[in-house]
Amino acid sequence: MSEINEKQMMYRHSMSHVLAKAIKELFGASVKLAIGPAIDNGFYYDFDVDRSITNEDFDAIENKMKEIIERNEDFVRKEISKEEALSMFKSEPYKIELINELPQDETISIYYLGDDFVDLCRGPHVENTKFLRGFAYKINRVSGAYWRGSEKNKMLQRVYVYGFLDKSELKKYINAMEEAMKRDHNKLGRELGIFTTVDSIGQGLPILLPKGARIIQLLQRFVEDEEQKRGWLLTKTPFMAKSDLYKISGHWDHYKDGMFVLGDEAKDKEVFALRPMTCPFQYQAYLNEARSYKDLPLRYNETSTLFRNEASGEMHGLIRVRQFTISEGHLMCTPEQLEDEFKNCLELAIYMLKTLGLYEDASYRFSQWDPNNRDKYIGTDEQWAEAQDIMGKILDKLEIPYTIGIGEAAFYGPKLDIQIRNVWGKEDTLITIQIDQLLAEKFGMEYTDKDGAKKTPYIIHRTSIGCYERTLAYLIEKYAGAFPTWLAPTQVKILNIADAHLEYARSVKEKLESYGLRVELDDRNEKIGKKIRDAQLEKVPYSVIVGDNEAASGSVAVRKRFVGDQGSIALDEFIKNIMQEVTSKVIG
Amino acid sequence: MSEINEKQMMYRHSMSHVLAKAIKELFGASVKLAIGPAIDNGFYYDFDVDRSITNEDFDAIENKMKEIIERNEDFVRKEISKEEALSMFKSEPYKIELINELPQDETISIYYLGDDFVDLCRGPHVENTKFLRGFAYKINRVSGAYWRGSEKNKMLQRVYVYGFLDKSELKKYINAMEEAMKRDHNKLGRELGIFTTVDSIGQGLPILLPKGARIIQLLQRFVEDEEQKRGWLLTKTPFMAKSDLYKISGHWDHYKDGMFVLGDEAKDKEVFALRPMTCPFQYQAYLNEARSYKDLPLRYNETSTLFRNEASGEMHGLIRVRQFTISEGHLMCTPEQLEDEFKNCLELAIYMLKTLGLYEDASYRFSQWDPNNRDKYIGTDEQWAEAQDIMGKILDKLEIPYTIGIGEAAFYGPKLDIQIRNVWGKEDTLITIQIDQLLAEKFGMEYTDKDGAKKTPYIIHRTSIGCYERTLAYLIEKYAGAFPTWLAPTQVKILNIADAHLEYARSVKEKLESYGLRVELDDRNEKIGKKIRDAQLEKVPYSVIVGDNEAASGSVAVRKRFVGDQGSIALDEFIKNIMQEVTSKVIG
Repeated sequence: MSEINEKQMMYRHSMSHVLAKAIKELFGASVKLAIGPAIDNGFYYDFDVDRSITNEDFDAIENKMKEIIERNEDFVRKEISKEEALSMFKSEPYKIELINELPQDETISIYYLGDDFVDLCRGPHVENTKFLRGFAYKINRVSGAYWRGSEKNKMLQRVYVYGFLDKSELKKYINAMEEAMKRDHNKLGRELGIFTTVDSIGQGLPILLPKGARIIQLLQRFVEDEEQKRGWLLTKTPFMAKSDLYKISGHWDHYKDGMFVLGDEAKDKEVFALRPMTCPFQYQAYLNEARSYKDLPLRYNETSTLFRNEASGEMHGLIRVRQFTISEGHLMCTPEQLEDEFKNCLELAIYMLKTLGLYEDASYRFSQWDPNNRDKYIGTDEQWAEAQDIMGKILDKLEIPYTIGIGEAAFYGPKLDIQIRNVWGKEDTLITIQIDQLLAEKFGMEYTDKDGAKKTPYIIHRTSIGCYERTLAYLIEKYAGAFPTWLAPTQVKILNIADAHLEYARSVKEKLESYGLRVELDDRNEKIGKKIRDAQLEKVPYSVIVGDNEAASGSVAVRKRFVGDQGSIALDEFIKNIMQEVTSKVIG
Repeated sequence: MSEINEKQMMYRHSMSHVLAKAIKELFGASVKLAIGPAIDNGFYYDFDVDRSITNEDFDAIENKMKEIIERNEDFVRKEISKEEALSMFKSEPYKIELINELPQDETISIYYLGDDFVDLCRGPHVENTKFLRGFAYKINRVSGAYWRGSEKNKMLQRVYVYGFLDKSELKKYINAMEEAMKRDHNKLGRELGIFTTVDSIGQGLPILLPKGARIIQLLQRFVEDEEQKRGWLLTKTPFMAKSDLYKISGHWDHYKDGMFVLGDEAKDKEVFALRPMTCPFQYQAYLNEARSYKDLPLRYNETSTLFRNEASGEMHGLIRVRQFTISEGHLMCTPEQLEDEFKNCLELAIYMLKTLGLYEDASYRFSQWDPNNRDKYIGTDEQWAEAQDIMGKILDKLEIPYTIGIGEAAFYGPKLDIQIRNVWGKEDTLITIQIDQLLAEKFGMEYTDKDGAKKTPYIIHRTSIGCYERTLAYLIEKYAGAFPTWLAPTQVKILNIADAHLEYARSVKEKLESYGLRVELDDRNEKIGKKIRDAQLEKVPYSVIVGDNEAASGSVAVRKRFVGDQGSIALDEFIKNIMQEVTSKVIG
């Protein structure tokens, strides 16, 4: 950590003591303290308080913190025995729990802040609160947090505070957060009517409303058509299977915790599980016939729905969900074909990213196994060394600039993961390309080679744009909801100036729709200015205004999103232009 | 039952005794008899025999039956007490089980066949086997059958025999069966590489291979596009939900046995179930905003995957499965809009059936509730009377010729079911249109009417072509695998006469593919006659032969399926013709 960062973390940590002291002074001695670390945008502290801390309390808390800082109180370190600590913190049950877990002979450090506040702490801290005078801080929010992160424990109140060494940094950070908030797909996606969630269905199971479902339909057709052009054969395999299949594949031993299981092996004759991956299902298409080297490479694609039993706390909008649909594919090939086919898969992925405008935001991770965590993987050390060696050589030859992710491999082989960050900076995998021979072996997949020998093919597992829900989330954030015209749920909004122009407006709508364009007519009795503003709020690419002149001349007055008024042009000319934009999938 | 049918059933039943006697004589007295009824194409008898009865035994059994018939043995009825029956059948444990279940004072009828064979039986029978001399019969197959149909009991051997009053009827029936066998999607669909199943995945979970998946993709796009044109808004909702949702909808109380449930309410905090219907999920899109009469009719469509926990014995190919994808839709409207919208839904269904060539094979069933089985339904008698009255009036006004199916309604409302039969004569529902207000009420779905009052909308639940897997099954059987060109997985097969024509063949392929046509090139070193025959076996609509003449003149020699040689035409002309056929979705 750099010197400035070390200093900043020390200041944040000191501030968390100031916050705790402020809460005690405001809410009384009955407040119990849990823990209060520095974090990467400030600090927090967990409290057990009788009443809820709300937004209305923030000013009072901030003022009290300021008051404490202005008292010029000393931070004083002392070292005491475990016995002394247990006695000193006897009215703080959370601290007592922490102290009890320390070894018997441990010397424990505590920090006083003034005479009347003391906290269990390793430090370091500033010497006196006067050093904190220039520190810029702002309470962000209060949220519930279980003591030690476990649902079995009491829910405490966690006060988050943004904190930086100077005001300009705090301001910059808050501005960035506000911008992220505007683009956050989990907020904007709901506001724009792209998706919603409901309690009775459950977390991680989003409902794609017509606008969201349309975008996914368009993406899906685009991907399936592009894959068909590149020689992929579509399959459609079931979303569940008996436990028997997962026992062959290894999922039962290495992935069961992440799966939704139906039934109980101790009681039921047949136990099913929803699939977390498509591999063992799509392999059945390969296994349906005897294969020869002449059949290879054999490329199967599928628009595949998968289910993963994510923990409640990990769910996030459309990015981390329990059910998702993915542009899945498995390619069987000979060793000689592996490099070219891997390259083709990567080219397809890059083509997709570029078409969607996400290419600049992506980075590469070479995900390897963790030899210190053998239980997570199938196969031998030699097999892993070989697979990773092959993959590394291919990546180096293709000159892909990657980072290495130890322990990020699939349980059956190494991966090239194409990573992307959401507006909050959290990184997830969007696309993955994997090399595997272990599962092919387990399923007895073979081909007869030129020499008549039976051989095990290499398998490339790959996605083209990955999960459709996640892709949609990144598109919402990338474009702040203003999707490229070819993907926009509504491409053109027709605004009639008065009722007299309704008939012409309808004929324009019909004509545009006959070209497959997605069109809405705003026929409300509203001023044209309001109609224009509303269409802008909905981020529709084109508003088309029709009044006397347009109806008389068969034209439309066009307003393009972000550009503004483009004047009146002939309807046919407008159609030609927009169809050109849609067909070439112009971004922005 | 007609007189001729009654006579036929009596003869069949008498023949089942002849079969049982024959088996005893051939396999010894240790054979235990279970039951042997007449059925609609003959009769069967269930036996407990030490060794397997196989196809090799059929001749001997048929000959032994003939021998018994030629002995002119009498069928003699006697009536005995329960006590006497228990003594007489003491070496027949299955008969004893049946006798024990009769009331104590019941008189029991038995039938002798000759002196040495007796069976528990109500009769009637022919008086003497001489009357059976003209009866035409043929053993069909042997299959396993649990005693009394329960898996807990012993598996017996059931001998099925086709049996008709005269030879010509038997021959007609067997011919029809052979024809059905050729078209049976469950056989042909596998042979053509359309689908398969594997034990480790499970029954009722078919794997759609590239040819089958392509047809479903084409159907799905066709349906979604047609629905979009007709004003339907696409949604994409999750395939599972917490039990909470199904408790609101009534599925938990009225449909739980048919659902796959994940978890146990007694143990788990959250219990999920896979959805058997889309209704409560798609309603969430309606509930996402406050609705006014101006928003109605609101039409939501979805390509929706559903899961039903069918019993193992009920599964059949692609027709009855545990997971299927359906062209689902729900339409919310005012009472005034109901009739027109119902009519529109029916028109869409008929348009689909006609386009697919299935219209002539469909019939209508007005599925009503069963008031004697109230537990199966939600709602009051009055609500059911009203809903059925409304639906009846609409059907009569539309002059739809329907049968009535008592007890075939959904648990929430009456249905118009469009029924279709498979090659074996078994009828199933392909398309359904339903009227419902009960679920709308349960979910609190409302709209604000012109007068400002909150009202409950009517909901039409409907499918457009129903389940894609089932539709595919009927298409395979209808066309015996020779799909209309627009749906054929491979539309054109290019056959090069010699290697010298390979380059031209490849250029033809590329050109055809640039029009989105699905093309294969048979570049094997085989005689052209064999290539033509193989393409015919695969039922590809067009074979295109390329040799010296074609390569020189930029033409192709076309063979059309069922029609034969059409001579050489310019490639562009061929493309124009086939594209015309594809675009207009020509049948046959």
